[in-house]
Amino acid sequence: MAHPKIDFWYSIGSTYTYLTVMRLDGVVKSEGVTFNWCPFNVRHVMVEQNNVPFMNKPIKEAYMWRDVERRSQSYGLSPIIPAPYPAPKMVLANQIAMVASKEGWCELYTKATYKRWFEHGEAPGDKQNLDNSLLAAGQDKDRVIELATSQEIISRLEQATQHAIDLGVFGSPSFVIDGEVFWGDDRLTDAIGWVKQT
Amino acid sequence: MAHPKIDFWYSIGSTYTYLTVMRLDGVVKSEGVTFNWCPFNVRHVMVEQNNVPFMNKPIKEAYMWRDVERRSQSYGLSPIIPAPYPAPKMVLANQIAMVASKEGWCELYTKATYKRWFEHGEAPGDKQNLDNSLLAAGQDKDRVIELATSQEIISRLEQATQHAIDLGVFGSPSFVIDGEVFWGDDRLTDAIGWVKQT
Repeated sequence: MAHPKIDFWYSIGSTYTYLTVMRLDGVVKSEGVTFNWCPFNVRHVMVEQNNVPFMNKPIKEAYMWRDVERRSQSYGLSPIIPAPYPAPKMVLANQIAMVASKEGWCELYTKATYKRWFEHGEAPGDKQNLDNSLLAAGQDKDRVIELATSQEIISRLEQATQHAIDLGVFGSPSFVIDGEVFWGDDRLTDAIGWVKQT
Repeated sequence: MAHPKIDFWYSIGSTYTYLTVMRLDGVVKSEGVTFNWCPFNVRHVMVEQNNVPFMNKPIKEAYMWRDVERRSQSYGLSPIIPAPYPAPKMVLANQIAMVASKEGWCELYTKATYKRWFEHGEAPGDKQNLDNSLLAAGQDKDRVIELATSQEIISRLEQATQHAIDLGVFGSPSFVIDGEVFWGDDRLTDAIGWVKQT
């Protein structure tokens, strides 16, 4: 029997997504569940739905960093908190993820860009992050950036984002199983329970 | 040795707080942790911090109800979803909780009002809910409402709310242990882990 599969919708630029991206390998091994990595542009959804999470909310943002820090510790991760935020070039980072998705190195790039962002202080889409994460993914930077900024990839990211909206996804990370949406790194356990019972 | 104690900050009117209120007894028994029940007016904090959760966010609100429904099932609860929302008389409901806190029947009233709200469709602070929840708490309704709307209790709720803000609390439910804030029913496990290690 094939492993149960969960669609993992995410946007590079989301802070809580760091927690998921960095622990998903371990979850695959321990739970026998696999994931489709599906990049989309959560910022577009948030602006459209009047739901930008930390803008003008300093108390909630401070809490988010402390929460991410505590949860990181519980997962054995060691980020430098706070990481640069927000990430002005997140759209480019997600366009690169769309190229990566098409070519089969999406997971590798996403993990590398989050590692550089949270563990080395390089915002996604920024030059240093691109240099290092594309090197880690074994890719030629110039080739990838040219593709990532092409109309084809811009359209693909827009289509993926519309698909996410149609599914009811409004935040990152989200886990989707046959139309059932689980939002947040803290709902990964619920999603795994769901896919195993269906 | 005394049981470790967690300050449980909550506002009647918050939907996710239903999950905590209805399962806290079981947690006390299974974990050997106790809770101070601390009502406050989260609506005031949310308006002040530009952080009202579901206003003009229908997709997120629909998700919240589905999430509360799924989590209720996992806790063995059977709410009628969606419950009436928002609750226009939530401030009165929290003023009553302040009276109850002063007189020692806070937990009893809070559980009763949530049960009426989520399992019988009676919004907190509404006549039917007051009739039934104050009866369940063994209280005389007229006496309690007169006290609840007195200047003393209004001031006590304001002071409690300011205290919550000073602690860094911005949502309900929150769990506070020596200045460490855990927000959300889904952080109760983290809070218990924290209080046990300190």
